[in-house]
Amino acid sequence: MSAPGHRGGSAGLRIAIPIFDGLTALDAIGPYEVLSRLPGATVSFVAAAAGRVRTENGMLALHADAAFDELVDPDVLVVPGGFGTRALMDDPVTLRWLRAVHAQTTWTTSVCTGSLLLGAAGILDGLRATSHWLELDTLADFGAEPVSERVVIDGKVITAAGVSAGIDMALTLAARLAGDDLAQAIQLGIEYDPHPPFRSGSPATAAPEIVELVRLRRARLA
Amino acid sequence: MSAPGHRGGSAGLRIAIPIFDGLTALDAIGPYEVLSRLPGATVSFVAAAAGRVRTENGMLALHADAAFDELVDPDVLVVPGGFGTRALMDDPVTLRWLRAVHAQTTWTTSVCTGSLLLGAAGILDGLRATSHWLELDTLADFGAEPVSERVVIDGKVITAAGVSAGIDMALTLAARLAGDDLAQAIQLGIEYDPHPPFRSGSPATAAPEIVELVRLRRARLA
Repeated sequence: MSAPGHRGGSAGLRIAIPIFDGLTALDAIGPYEVLSRLPGATVSFVAAAAGRVRTENGMLALHADAAFDELVDPDVLVVPGGFGTRALMDDPVTLRWLRAVHAQTTWTTSVCTGSLLLGAAGILDGLRATSHWLELDTLADFGAEPVSERVVIDGKVITAAGVSAGIDMALTLAARLAGDDLAQAIQLGIEYDPHPPFRSGSPATAAPEIVELVRLRRARLA
Repeated sequence: MSAPGHRGGSAGLRIAIPIFDGLTALDAIGPYEVLSRLPGATVSFVAAAAGRVRTENGMLALHADAAFDELVDPDVLVVPGGFGTRALMDDPVTLRWLRAVHAQTTWTTSVCTGSLLLGAAGILDGLRATSHWLELDTLADFGAEPVSERVVIDGKVITAAGVSAGIDMALTLAARLAGDDLAQAIQLGIEYDPHPPFRSGSPATAAPEIVELVRLRRARLA
Protein backbone atom coordinates (compact mmCIF):
# COMPACT_ATOMS: atom_id res chain seq x y z
CA MET A 1 0.00 0.00 0.00
CA SER A 2 1.12 3.58 -0.38
CA ALA A 3 0.53 6.62 1.78
CA PRO A 4 -1.51 5.00 4.54
CA GLY A 5 -3.02 7.56 6.84
CA HIS A 6 -5.75 8.33 9.29
CA ARG A 7 -8.45 7.78 6.67
CA GLY A 8 -6.88 4.77 5.01
CA GLY A 9 -6.37 2.94 8.28
CA SER A 10 -3.62 0.46 8.95
CA ALA A 11 -4.67 -2.52 6.81
CA GLY A 12 -1.70 -3.82 4.86
CA LEU A 13 0.69 -1.46 6.62
CA ARG A 14 4.24 -2.76 6.73
CA ILE A 15 6.51 -1.63 9.57
CA ALA A 16 10.24 -2.38 9.66
CA ILE A 17 12.39 -2.28 12.78
CA PRO A 18 16.12 -2.66 12.06
CA ILE A 19 17.99 -4.36 14.90
CA PHE A 20 21.73 -4.79 15.47
CA ASP A 21 24.26 -5.94 18.02
CA GLY A 22 24.35 -3.48 20.88
CA LEU A 23 20.80 -2.22 20.59
CA THR A 24 18.67 -1.21 23.57
CA ALA A 25 15.81 -3.72 23.54
CA LEU A 26 13.06 -1.47 24.92
CA ASP A 27 13.74 1.11 22.17
CA ALA A 28 12.52 -1.50 19.68
CA ILE A 29 9.98 -3.42 21.76
CA GLY A 30 8.00 -0.42 23.01
CA PRO A 31 7.00 0.68 19.47
CA TYR A 32 6.62 -2.97 18.37
CA GLU A 33 4.12 -3.62 21.17
CA VAL A 34 2.00 -0.63 20.09
CA LEU A 35 2.29 -0.80 16.29
CA SER A 36 1.83 -4.58 16.02
CA ARG A 37 -1.68 -4.00 17.42
CA LEU A 38 -2.74 -1.85 14.48
CA PRO A 39 -5.35 -3.93 12.61
CA GLY A 40 -3.87 -5.53 9.52
CA ALA A 41 -0.36 -4.18 10.13
CA THR A 42 2.78 -6.31 10.07
CA VAL A 43 5.95 -5.57 12.02
CA SER A 44 9.18 -7.10 10.72
CA PHE A 45 12.50 -7.19 12.54
CA VAL A 46 15.28 -6.79 10.02
CA ALA A 47 19.09 -6.74 10.15
CA ALA A 48 22.06 -6.63 7.79
CA ALA A 49 21.78 -10.43 7.83
CA ALA A 50 18.84 -12.43 9.21
CA GLY A 51 19.48 -14.15 12.53
CA ARG A 52 20.32 -13.35 16.11
CA VAL A 53 21.48 -9.99 17.43
CA ARG A 54 22.38 -9.24 21.06
CA THR A 55 21.56 -6.25 23.19
CA GLU A 56 24.30 -3.97 24.51
CA ASN A 57 24.66 -5.91 27.78
CA GLY A 58 24.71 -9.29 26.00
CA MET A 59 21.88 -10.64 28.15
CA LEU A 60 19.19 -10.89 25.46
CA ALA A 61 19.10 -12.04 21.85
CA LEU A 62 16.38 -10.94 19.44
CA HIS A 63 15.90 -12.63 16.10
CA ALA A 64 15.86 -10.71 12.83
CA ASP A 65 13.51 -12.55 10.46
CA ALA A 66 14.60 -10.64 7.37
CA ALA A 67 17.81 -9.25 5.89
CA PHE A 68 18.00 -5.64 4.70
CA ASP A 69 17.78 -6.65 1.04
CA GLU A 70 14.58 -8.61 1.66
CA LEU A 71 12.70 -5.58 2.96
CA VAL A 72 13.39 -2.35 1.14
CA ASP A 73 9.99 -0.67 0.97
CA PRO A 74 8.21 -0.64 4.35
CA ASP A 75 5.59 2.04 4.95
CA VAL A 76 6.97 2.82 8.40
CA LEU A 77 10.57 2.68 9.63
CA VAL A 78 11.36 2.56 13.37
CA VAL A 79 15.06 2.87 14.22
CA PRO A 80 16.00 1.94 17.81
CA GLY A 81 19.13 3.13 19.61
CA GLY A 82 21.76 1.75 21.94
CA PHE A 83 25.55 1.79 22.17
CA GLY A 84 25.61 -0.34 19.01
CA THR A 85 24.62 2.71 16.96
CA ARG A 86 28.19 4.03 17.29
CA ALA A 87 29.66 1.29 15.12
CA LEU A 88 26.84 1.69 12.58
CA MET A 89 27.23 5.45 12.12
CA ASP A 90 30.14 4.64 9.77
CA ASP A 91 28.64 1.49 8.26
CA PRO A 92 27.86 2.05 4.55
CA VAL A 93 25.48 -0.94 4.32
CA THR A 94 23.28 0.31 7.14
CA LEU A 95 23.33 3.96 6.06
CA ARG A 96 22.56 3.08 2.44
CA TRP A 97 19.61 0.92 3.53
CA LEU A 98 18.26 3.65 5.82
CA ARG A 99 18.45 6.24 3.01
CA ALA A 100 16.79 3.95 0.46
CA VAL A 101 14.01 2.98 2.85
CA HIS A 102 13.44 6.56 4.00
CA ALA A 103 13.11 7.73 0.39
CA GLN A 104 9.81 5.84 0.11
CA THR A 105 8.37 5.61 3.64
CA THR A 106 5.21 7.27 4.82
CA TRP A 107 6.78 7.73 8.25
CA THR A 108 10.42 7.49 9.31
CA THR A 109 10.86 7.28 13.07
CA SER A 110 13.51 6.71 15.72
CA VAL A 111 13.79 6.08 19.43
CA CYS A 112 16.66 7.24 21.66
CA THR A 113 20.03 7.25 19.84
CA GLY A 114 18.35 5.74 16.80
CA SER A 115 18.11 9.39 15.75
CA LEU A 116 21.92 9.52 15.51
CA LEU A 117 21.72 6.80 12.86
CA LEU A 118 19.09 8.80 10.97
CA GLY A 119 21.39 11.79 11.33
CA ALA A 120 24.44 9.89 10.06
CA ALA A 121 22.36 8.81 7.06
CA GLY A 122 21.67 12.48 6.28
CA ILE A 123 17.96 12.19 7.01
CA LEU A 124 17.75 14.84 9.75
CA ASP A 125 19.50 17.68 7.91
CA GLY A 126 17.51 20.85 8.58
CA LEU A 127 14.90 19.07 10.72
CA ARG A 128 13.84 19.51 14.35
CA ALA A 129 14.65 16.26 16.15
CA THR A 130 15.28 14.68 19.56
CA SER A 131 17.29 11.85 21.11
CA HIS A 132 18.32 10.50 24.51
CA TRP A 133 18.94 13.55 26.72
CA LEU A 134 22.62 12.61 27.03
CA GLU A 135 23.07 12.72 23.24
CA LEU A 136 20.76 15.57 22.32
CA ASP A 137 23.60 17.96 21.39
CA THR A 138 25.12 15.39 19.03
CA LEU A 139 22.16 15.88 16.68
CA ALA A 140 23.52 19.28 15.71
CA ASP A 141 26.54 17.52 14.14
CA PHE A 142 24.12 16.20 11.51
CA GLY A 143 22.51 19.53 10.71
CA ALA A 144 19.46 18.88 12.87
CA GLU A 145 17.96 21.29 15.38
CA PRO A 146 18.01 19.46 18.75
CA VAL A 147 14.70 19.75 20.59
CA SER A 148 14.28 18.68 24.21
CA GLU A 149 10.80 17.17 23.87
CA ARG A 150 9.53 13.63 24.30
CA VAL A 151 8.24 13.22 20.74
CA VAL A 152 9.20 15.54 17.87
CA ILE A 153 7.40 15.51 14.52
CA ASP A 154 8.90 17.31 11.53
CA GLY A 155 7.29 16.43 8.23
CA LYS A 156 7.24 12.65 7.96
CA VAL A 157 10.07 12.19 10.48
CA ILE A 158 9.23 11.45 14.12
CA THR A 159 12.01 11.20 16.69
CA ALA A 160 11.54 10.15 20.31
CA ALA A 161 13.61 10.81 23.44
CA GLY A 162 15.37 8.05 25.37
CA VAL A 163 14.36 4.37 25.52
CA SER A 164 10.87 4.41 27.08
CA ALA A 165 9.80 7.39 24.92
CA GLY A 166 9.25 4.97 22.04
CA ILE A 167 5.93 3.97 23.60
CA ASP A 168 4.66 7.55 23.56
CA MET A 169 5.99 8.02 20.03
CA ALA A 170 4.29 4.89 18.75
CA LEU A 171 0.93 5.82 20.28
CA THR A 172 1.21 9.24 18.64
CA LEU A 173 1.99 7.55 15.33
CA ALA A 174 -0.82 5.00 15.78
CA ALA A 175 -3.28 7.88 16.09
CA ARG A 176 -2.00 9.39 12.83
CA LEU A 177 -2.21 6.04 11.06
CA ALA A 178 -5.52 4.72 12.33
CA GLY A 179 -7.27 7.44 14.29
CA ASP A 180 -7.52 8.44 17.94
CA ASP A 181 -10.03 5.75 18.95
CA LEU A 182 -7.81 2.92 17.84
CA ALA A 183 -4.72 4.48 19.41
CA GLN A 184 -6.63 4.85 22.67
CA ALA A 185 -7.78 1.22 22.46
CA ILE A 186 -4.15 0.13 22.01
CA GLN A 187 -3.11 2.24 25.00
CA LEU A 188 -5.82 0.56 27.09
CA GLY A 189 -4.86 -2.86 25.73
CA ILE A 190 -1.31 -2.46 27.00
CA GLU A 191 -2.66 -0.76 30.15
CA TYR A 192 -0.36 2.21 29.61
CA ASP A 193 -1.38 4.21 32.66
CA PRO A 194 2.13 4.89 33.90
CA HIS A 195 2.80 5.40 37.60
CA PRO A 196 6.58 5.75 37.91
CA PRO A 197 7.60 5.36 41.56
CA PHE A 198 9.86 8.42 41.30
CA ARG A 199 9.91 11.74 39.42
CA SER A 200 13.41 11.13 38.09
CA GLY A 201 12.61 10.29 34.46
CA SER A 202 13.92 13.57 33.04
CA PRO A 203 17.04 15.62 33.81
CA ALA A 204 14.64 18.51 34.44
CA THR A 205 12.88 16.70 37.31
CA ALA A 206 15.57 14.37 38.70
CA ALA A 207 17.74 15.52 41.60
CA PRO A 208 21.11 16.94 40.46
CA GLU A 209 23.02 14.10 42.18
CA ILE A 210 20.95 11.54 40.24
CA VAL A 211 21.75 13.28 36.95
CA GLU A 212 25.41 13.20 37.93
CA LEU A 213 25.18 9.50 38.83
CA VAL A 214 23.78 8.68 35.39
CA ARG A 215 26.49 10.72 33.66
CA LEU A 216 29.14 8.83 35.64
CA ARG A 217 27.62 5.41 34.93
CA ARG A 218 27.45 6.18 31.26
CA ALA A 219 31.01 7.53 31.10
CA ARG A 220 32.15 4.24 32.64
CA LEU A 221 30.25 2.23 29.99
CA ALA A 222 31.47 4.33 27.07
CA MET B 1 24.19 -14.96 46.83
CA SER B 2 21.21 -15.21 49.13
CA ALA B 3 18.71 -12.65 50.35
CA PRO B 4 19.95 -9.64 48.43
CA GLY B 5 18.28 -6.49 49.57
CA HIS B 6 18.53 -2.77 49.86
CA ARG B 7 21.64 -3.00 52.03
CA GLY B 8 23.29 -5.86 50.17
CA GLY B 9 22.90 -4.18 46.79
CA SER B 10 22.54 -6.01 43.50
CA ALA B 11 26.05 -7.43 42.98
CA GLY B 12 25.80 -11.07 41.94
CA LEU B 13 22.02 -10.91 41.71
CA ARG B 14 20.58 -13.44 39.26
CA ILE B 15 17.27 -12.66 37.60
CA ALA B 16 15.35 -15.22 35.52
CA ILE B 17 12.67 -14.33 32.97
CA PRO B 18 10.85 -17.40 31.61
CA ILE B 19 9.65 -16.93 28.04
CA PHE B 20 7.33 -19.06 25.91
CA ASP B 21 5.46 -19.11 22.62
CA GLY B 22 2.61 -16.62 22.76
CA LEU B 23 4.16 -14.24 25.26
CA THR B 24 3.67 -10.47 25.17
CA ALA B 25 7.15 -9.09 24.53
CA LEU B 26 6.85 -5.84 26.48
CA ASP B 27 5.82 -7.77 29.62
CA ALA B 28 9.31 -9.28 29.61
CA ILE B 29 11.37 -6.47 28.07
CA GLY B 30 10.12 -3.67 30.34
CA PRO B 31 11.46 -5.34 33.51
CA TYR B 32 14.54 -6.61 31.65
CA GLU B 33 15.44 -3.06 30.60
CA VAL B 34 15.24 -1.86 34.22
CA LEU B 35 16.69 -4.83 36.11
CA SER B 36 19.59 -5.47 33.72
CA ARG B 37 20.88 -2.02 34.74
CA LEU B 38 21.30 -3.02 38.39
CA PRO B 39 25.07 -3.06 38.96
CA GLY B 40 26.43 -6.61 38.95
CA ALA B 41 23.07 -8.21 38.20
CA THR B 42 22.50 -10.76 35.43
CA VAL B 43 19.23 -11.28 33.60
CA SER B 44 18.72 -14.67 31.92
CA PHE B 45 15.94 -15.56 29.51
CA VAL B 46 14.92 -19.16 30.10
CA ALA B 47 12.41 -21.56 28.54
CA ALA B 48 11.40 -25.21 28.75
CA ALA B 49 14.07 -25.74 26.09
CA ALA B 50 16.70 -23.20 25.05
CA GLY B 51 16.11 -21.58 21.67
CA ARG B 52 13.62 -19.37 19.91
CA VAL B 53 10.14 -18.50 21.14
CA ARG B 54 7.63 -16.32 19.30
CA THR B 55 5.32 -13.65 20.59
CA GLU B 56 1.54 -14.07 20.39
CA ASN B 57 1.28 -12.33 17.01
CA GLY B 58 4.21 -14.30 15.53
CA MET B 59 6.03 -11.13 14.49
CA LEU B 60 8.96 -11.36 16.91
CA ALA B 61 11.23 -14.14 18.12
CA LEU B 62 13.20 -13.87 21.36
CA HIS B 63 15.95 -16.30 22.20
CA ALA B 64 16.02 -18.27 25.46
CA ASP B 65 19.67 -18.80 26.39
CA ALA B 66 18.96 -21.39 29.08
CA ALA B 67 16.60 -24.31 29.63
CA PHE B 68 14.56 -24.57 32.84
CA ASP B 69 16.82 -27.29 34.25
CA GLU B 70 19.90 -25.11 33.76
CA LEU B 71 18.59 -22.31 35.98
CA VAL B 72 16.73 -23.44 39.07
CA ASP B 73 17.86 -20.99 41.74
CA PRO B 74 17.62 -17.37 40.56
CA ASP B 75 17.26 -14.68 43.22
CA VAL B 76 14.49 -12.94 41.30
CA LEU B 77 11.81 -14.46 39.07
CA VAL B 78 9.89 -12.29 36.57
CA VAL B 79 6.99 -14.05 34.82
CA PRO B 80 5.57 -12.26 31.76
CA GLY B 81 2.07 -12.79 30.36
CA GLY B 82 0.37 -13.12 27.00
CA PHE B 83 -2.15 -15.45 25.40
CA GLY B 84 0.48 -18.21 25.59
CA THR B 85 -0.08 -18.42 29.35
CA ARG B 86 -3.35 -20.29 28.69
CA ALA B 87 -1.60 -23.37 27.35
CA LEU B 88 0.92 -23.27 30.19
CA MET B 89 -1.61 -23.12 33.02
CA ASP B 90 -1.97 -26.92 32.60
CA ASP B 91 1.65 -27.62 31.76
CA PRO B 92 3.27 -29.67 34.55
CA VAL B 93 6.84 -28.86 33.46
CA THR B 94 6.29 -25.11 33.67
CA LEU B 95 4.28 -25.21 36.90
CA ARG B 96 6.80 -27.50 38.60
CA TRP B 97 9.66 -25.19 37.60
CA LEU B 98 7.81 -22.10 38.84
CA ARG B 99 7.11 -23.75 42.21
CA ALA B 100 10.69 -24.96 42.64
CA VAL B 101 12.13 -21.58 41.71
CA HIS B 102 9.68 -19.65 43.89
CA ALA B 103 10.57 -21.82 46.90
CA GLN B 104 14.01 -20.22 47.00
CA THR B 105 13.67 -16.76 45.43
CA THR B 106 14.10 -13.51 47.25
CA TRP B 107 11.44 -11.95 45.02
CA THR B 108 8.87 -13.64 42.79
CA THR B 109 7.21 -11.25 40.35
CA SER B 110 4.84 -11.19 37.38
CA VAL B 111 3.60 -8.81 34.72
CA CYS B 112 0.10 -8.87 33.17
CA THR B 113 -1.32 -12.41 32.87
CA GLY B 114 1.97 -13.81 34.15
CA SER B 115 0.13 -13.68 37.48
CA LEU B 116 -2.27 -16.35 36.18
CA LEU B 117 0.71 -18.66 35.78
CA LEU B 118 1.82 -17.90 39.33
CA GLY B 119 -1.77 -18.59 40.39
CA ALA B 120 -1.93 -21.88 38.50
CA ALA B 121 1.30 -22.89 40.25
CA GLY B 122 -0.38 -22.28 43.61
CA ILE B 123 1.89 -19.36 44.47
CA LEU B 124 -0.83 -16.72 44.94
CA ASP B 125 -3.09 -18.64 47.32
CA GLY B 126 -4.18 -16.22 50.04
CA LEU B 127 -2.21 -13.29 48.59
CA ARG B 128 -3.28 -9.89 47.30
CA ALA B 129 -2.37 -9.77 43.60
CA THR B 130 -3.09 -8.03 40.31
CA SER B 131 -3.12 -8.79 36.57
CA HIS B 132 -4.23 -7.25 33.28
CA TRP B 133 -7.54 -5.47 33.99
CA LEU B 134 -9.40 -7.86 31.66
CA GLU B 135 -8.22 -10.88 33.70
CA LEU B 136 -8.28 -9.46 37.21
CA ASP B 137 -11.27 -11.54 38.33
CA THR B 138 -9.58 -14.76 37.17
CA LEU B 139 -7.09 -14.41 40.02
CA ALA B 140 -9.82 -15.35 42.51
CA ASP B 141 -9.93 -18.82 40.91
CA PHE B 142 -6.49 -19.39 42.39
CA GLY B 143 -7.34 -18.25 45.90
CA ALA B 144 -5.84 -14.80 45.43
CA GLU B 145 -7.48 -11.52 46.36
CA PRO B 146 -7.67 -9.46 43.13
CA VAL B 147 -6.48 -5.89 43.62
CA SER B 148 -6.96 -3.19 40.99
CA GLU B 149 -3.61 -1.45 41.47
CA ARG B 150 -0.65 -0.99 39.17
CA VAL B 151 1.86 -2.80 41.39
CA VAL B 152 0.88 -5.05 44.30
CA ILE B 153 3.38 -6.30 46.88
CA ASP B 154 2.43 -9.10 49.27
CA GLY B 155 5.37 -10.59 51.14
CA LYS B 156 8.00 -11.50 48.56
CA VAL B 157 5.49 -11.64 45.69
CA ILE B 158 5.06 -8.59 43.44
CA THR B 159 2.44 -8.62 40.69
CA ALA B 160 1.97 -5.89 38.09
CA ALA B 161 -1.03 -4.86 35.98
CA GLY B 162 -1.10 -5.17 32.17
CA VAL B 163 1.93 -5.12 29.84
CA SER B 164 3.48 -1.67 30.40
CA ALA B 165 3.07 -1.93 34.19
CA GLY B 166 6.16 -4.13 34.29
CA ILE B 167 8.31 -1.01 34.00
CA ASP B 168 6.76 0.51 37.14
CA MET B 169 7.02 -2.84 38.92
CA ALA B 170 10.68 -3.26 38.05
CA LEU B 171 11.58 0.26 39.21
CA THR B 172 9.81 -0.44 42.50
CA LEU B 173 11.75 -3.69 42.83
CA ALA B 174 15.04 -2.01 41.83
CA ALA B 175 14.57 0.41 44.74
CA ARG B 176 14.06 -2.50 47.16
CA LEU B 177 17.11 -4.30 45.80
CA ALA B 178 19.58 -1.46 45.46
CA GLY B 179 18.10 1.66 47.03
CA ASP B 180 16.15 4.67 45.81
CA ASP B 181 19.10 6.53 44.30
CA LEU B 182 20.02 3.70 41.98
CA ALA B 183 16.39 3.09 40.97
CA GLN B 184 16.06 6.79 40.18
CA ALA B 185 19.28 6.67 38.13
CA ILE B 186 17.87 3.75 36.15
CA GLN B 187 14.62 5.64 35.58
CA LEU B 188 16.61 8.62 34.27
CA GLY B 189 18.81 6.33 32.18
CA ILE B 190 15.77 4.97 30.34
CA GLU B 191 14.25 8.48 30.33
CA TYR B 192 11.05 7.15 31.86
CA ASP B 193 9.15 10.42 32.03
CA PRO B 194 5.98 9.14 30.40
CA HIS B 195 3.74 11.47 28.41
CA PRO B 196 0.99 9.26 26.98
CA PRO B 197 -0.84 11.16 24.25
CA PHE B 198 -4.22 10.08 25.71
CA ARG B 199 -5.68 9.32 29.15
CA SER B 200 -6.97 5.93 28.05
CA GLY B 201 -4.47 3.68 29.82
CA SER B 202 -6.89 2.42 32.46
CA PRO B 203 -10.54 1.30 32.25
CA ALA B 204 -11.18 3.92 34.95
CA THR B 205 -10.02 6.81 32.75
CA ALA B 206 -10.73 5.58 29.20
CA ALA B 207 -14.03 6.48 27.52
CA PRO B 208 -16.66 3.70 27.84
CA GLU B 209 -16.67 3.12 24.06
CA ILE B 210 -12.90 2.59 24.12
CA VAL B 211 -13.24 0.03 26.92
CA GLU B 212 -15.92 -1.71 24.84
CA LEU B 213 -13.69 -1.64 21.74
CA VAL B 214 -10.87 -3.38 23.65
CA ARG B 215 -13.26 -6.01 25.03
CA LEU B 216 -14.49 -6.72 21.49
CA ARG B 217 -10.99 -6.91 20.00
CA ARG B 218 -9.91 -9.30 22.72
CA ALA B 219 -13.02 -11.50 22.36
CA ARG B 220 -12.18 -11.80 18.66
CA LEU B 221 -8.59 -12.86 19.44
CA ALA B 222 -9.58 -15.38 22.12
